Amino acid sequence: MDDYEIEELEAVDLESPVLVEGLPGVGHVGKLAVEHLLEELDSTLVRRVYSTHFPPQVSVKDGDVQLASAEFHAVTPDEGRDLLVLSGNHQAQDNAGHYGLVSTFLDVGESFGVEEIIALGGVPTGELIEEYDVIGAATTDDMTADLEGAGVAFRENEPAGGIVGVSGLLLGMGKRQGTPAACLMGETSGYLVDPKSAQAVLEVLQDLLGFEVDYSSLEERADEMEEVVRKIQEMEQGPSSPADEDLRYIG
Amino acid sequence: MDDYEIEELEAVDLESPVLVEGLPGVGHVGKLAVEHLLEELDSTLVRRVYSTHFPPQVSVKDGDVQLASAEFHAVTPDEGRDLLVLSGNHQAQDNAGHYGLVSTFLDVGESFGVEEIIALGGVPTGELIEEYDVIGAATTDDMTADLEGAGVAFRENEPAGGIVGVSGLLLGMGKRQGTPAACLMGETSGYLVDPKSAQAVLEVLQDLLGFEVDYSSLEERADEMEEVVRKIQEMEQGPSSPADEDLRYIG
Amino acid sequence: MDDYEIEELEAVDLESPVLVEGLPGVGHVGKLAVEHLLEELDSTLVRRVYSTHFPPQVSVKDGDVQLASAEFHAVTPDEGRDLLVLSGNHQAQDNAGHYGLVSTFLDVGESFGVEEIIALGGVPTGELIEEYDVIGAATTDDMTADLEGAGVAFRENEPAGGIVGVSGLLLGMGKRQGTPAACLMGETSGYLVDPKSAQAVLEVLQDLLGFEVDYSSLEERADEMEEVVRKIQEMEQGPSSPADEDLRYIG
Amino acid sequence: MDDYEIEELEAVDLESPVLVEGLPGVGHVGKLAVEHLLEELDSTLVRRVYSTHFPPQVSVKDGDVQLASAEFHAVTPDEGRDLLVLSGNHQAQDNAGHYGLVSTFLDVGESFGVEEIIALGGVPTGELIEEYDVIGAATTDDMTADLEGAGVAFRENEPAGGIVGVSGLLLGMGKRQGTPAACLMGETSGYLVDPKSAQAVLEVLQDLLGFEVDYSSLEERADEMEEVVRKIQEMEQGPSSPADEDLRYIG
Repeated sequence: MDDYEIEELEAVDLESPVLVEGLPGVGHVGKLAVEHLLEELDSTLVRRVYSTHFPPQVSVKDGDVQLASAEFHAVTPDEGRDLLVLSGNHQAQDNAGHYGLVSTFLDVGESFGVEEIIALGGVPTGELIEEYDVIGAATTDDMTADLEGAGVAFRENEPAGGIVGVSGLLLGMGKRQGTPAACLMGETSGYLVDPKSAQAVLEVLQDLLGFEVDYSSLEERADEMEEVVRKIQEMEQGPSSPADEDLRYIG
Repeated sequence: MDDYEIEELEAVDLESPVLVEGLPGVGHVGKLAVEHLLEELDSTLVRRVYSTHFPPQVSVKDGDVQLASAEFHAVTPDEGRDLLVLSGNHQAQDNAGHYGLVSTFLDVGESFGVEEIIALGGVPTGELIEEYDVIGAATTDDMTADLEGAGVAFRENEPAGGIVGVSGLLLGMGKRQGTPAACLMGETSGYLVDPKSAQAVLEVLQDLLGFEVDYSSLEERADEMEEVVRKIQEMEQGPSSPADEDLRYIG
Repeated sequence: MDDYEIEELEAVDLESPVLVEGLPGVGHVGKLAVEHLLEELDSTLVRRVYSTHFPPQVSVKDGDVQLASAEFHAVTPDEGRDLLVLSGNHQAQDNAGHYGLVSTFLDVGESFGVEEIIALGGVPTGELIEEYDVIGAATTDDMTADLEGAGVAFRENEPAGGIVGVSGLLLGMGKRQGTPAACLMGETSGYLVDPKSAQAVLEVLQDLLGFEVDYSSLEERADEMEEVVRKIQEMEQGPSSPADEDLRYIG
Repeated sequence: MDDYEIEELEAVDLESPVLVEGLPGVGHVGKLAVEHLLEELDSTLVRRVYSTHFPPQVSVKDGDVQLASAEFHAVTPDEGRDLLVLSGNHQAQDNAGHYGLVSTFLDVGESFGVEEIIALGGVPTGELIEEYDVIGAATTDDMTADLEGAGVAFRENEPAGGIVGVSGLLLGMGKRQGTPAACLMGETSGYLVDPKSAQAVLEVLQDLLGFEVDYSSLEERADEMEEVVRKIQEMEQGPSSPADEDLRYIG
């Protein structure tokens, strides 16, 4: 097996598509966002990428065995631009693997005529979020202007640690090969899977690219997560001490 | 030395053999199972695979020095299908090594005309087992049907973390190259070497492939392990409190 | 992407330049020194080196996205020798990467006709420094003599652990390919970023190579760091014990 | 730089030499032994091996900078067989590096006509040693017989964990390429550098190969280490509590 292998599954013609990436990362924001996109829009699985830099692992689901891979789905929504959506359950397990995978992803993108790249992810704030801002970074002035027009915040030294992993390299290596690229980073605590941050990112993406999706299932997941957060907070404050309260009632 | 080297030791003709793998893993279930198979059935050591991805190590046994390797034994039992049995003391030490070793193992299998692959292993339950179920995963409907016929359980989301290491890749990469593959996973606590789980797996394999083996030596090892478990449980409950017992004698 | 890629940005002719390296390391002494050099002297960014052995990361600064890299600046000061200055934010992330990067750096140096190499760094003493000595190591007697003439100390078994990373390999691999190389190591506690140690190193370098720079901005950073140190020391000694002081006022 | 590079320093003809290896390991037994050998016998540095799998490091000694390497010295003693002695300060830093280095070492050995390999090392016992036995392992019956004749102990399951690193692979890979190889392992606590164990190993080697060396400097180092051990034991037992003893004298 080669270090990186592209499996061709379906031939689909896309018109000047945008590559939209959402692999696992901070708060699983990018992954949740693209998974929601693929649930809501009709899509065709067109490519799988296998790599010896992924974990040596198969997933098992309803008797179906699948070797660790990244997947490309073609999406031609009724409204808005064509999309090539990159999703999966793994990042590379080592340094060189990140670079090699992104090279391969860019090759796949090129074969579909990708003209722009938008990487989706989360940026950790370290505290629970009230207002879900989306932070941006872009490799061209045009994309910066587009993002600002869609309400994306550009802040002087954010994200402070730069952007790591596949999202970061899609920008850095995309820039080097001349494909305009941007990253939408939803603010998230960094402690929990964050469907609300994913929705904030998707709403910006929808504004940029013109598709229409329903958010009710993502909102349900967000409600479930809020329930989880509420229970954790309760546990941290200890039992609500009924004895003490009784005393007050007596008084 | 190349990254992967196949040493040819004996030429043996096998008829449509099944590759049976049992390398170290959870509860050493797969390793115990194939070691028992090789003790009970006549076999010929036909290939050794060396790799720079194995630990840099030799084993020393009765003055005999052996470089870290995986071994293939040819088995032509009186009853049932021919077997090519893959055993050894090591998994690869890194990600790429797992992929490379499994490629090499599949090449060896192909050179012997292997038509099916059955990987043996354990699935950790986190608690001591009463009833030793065997969980299955398979890459074709035919193999799934065969396994179900032999009493193997297929459960919707098990094993939850997928299958890792050589066993997992034999399924994933075997599927990609078109060789039907299955995995038999004996339930095991995950804390101890588990001969009972190995026996449960072997009994399913015997049913599937038609060989006949005696289990008394494996049962002896199981009894020894149960003794170990009993002692650990005693130690966890603390000393048997002679003072208390003395009181009873007094009474 | 290749393991190591050289990006050619500007063509500049240098006359028998000295390669001056300052990548991140102990006390960031080398990095601070070359950054100050580039702030104070006119320079041209001539090469970037990208590598799959750098972290998979882009930095984001004022909307500008930059893939992890090392940079070469050409400097032709009014006085003194021409310089080729190697700076950056990263060391290689693995063993082989250090060797490969330094090979690449030496290739870049050769393409500019580099005749000598001076690596800048810090040597940790484990305690706060009063007098900032600069320790030296060199691959030729001539460079040793030059350094001693500039006040550099050569001590029998220092640095005890040798010199690691890019600085060490520039000497070791430079020596093998026949380019005279030396290392200037400023003494530093090892606990803090140390602009004073960087200034001590730069003053030696200035003496050796003949350029002229102003140190006021580096001195400002040193003052800031001293303030930080003072505050840390205060915190370690606990609150300043107002009760005791009150007693004096009473008296 | 290639992964492994052989630097040819001197041309020396050796007659059927024995390769004697002593790189860092348990108790530094092998390293101490070959260093003593090179101090006591006239030798010529004939080859250096550099590798990207060594640490990225130079040593600095009296102003001399040396890139991390392994060294081969040719020794033609007045009495006994010619030796090719392999020494150095480093093992490989990763798995594949061990295999690649030993391949390279065997190539160097072959170029000098090496006919036998003897690896020197320590075997940890976990407790302080009174009687310094030397344990053996060998790839041929002849070498086993020779070692037994020199008082080396062969024990059924020792060393239990096999032999790791360069020493282990010299046996395993030497066996594969048909060069008889043995390992002499001095018993050592495993906690301290152990010159006594090194002397025990050297005395066996001297008996096997016929050279003559003086052990007084090694005995001095052993005395120094015993002093260290004595002090550690004192510290563990706490102060010798003269007050308590005085009381007894009073009574």
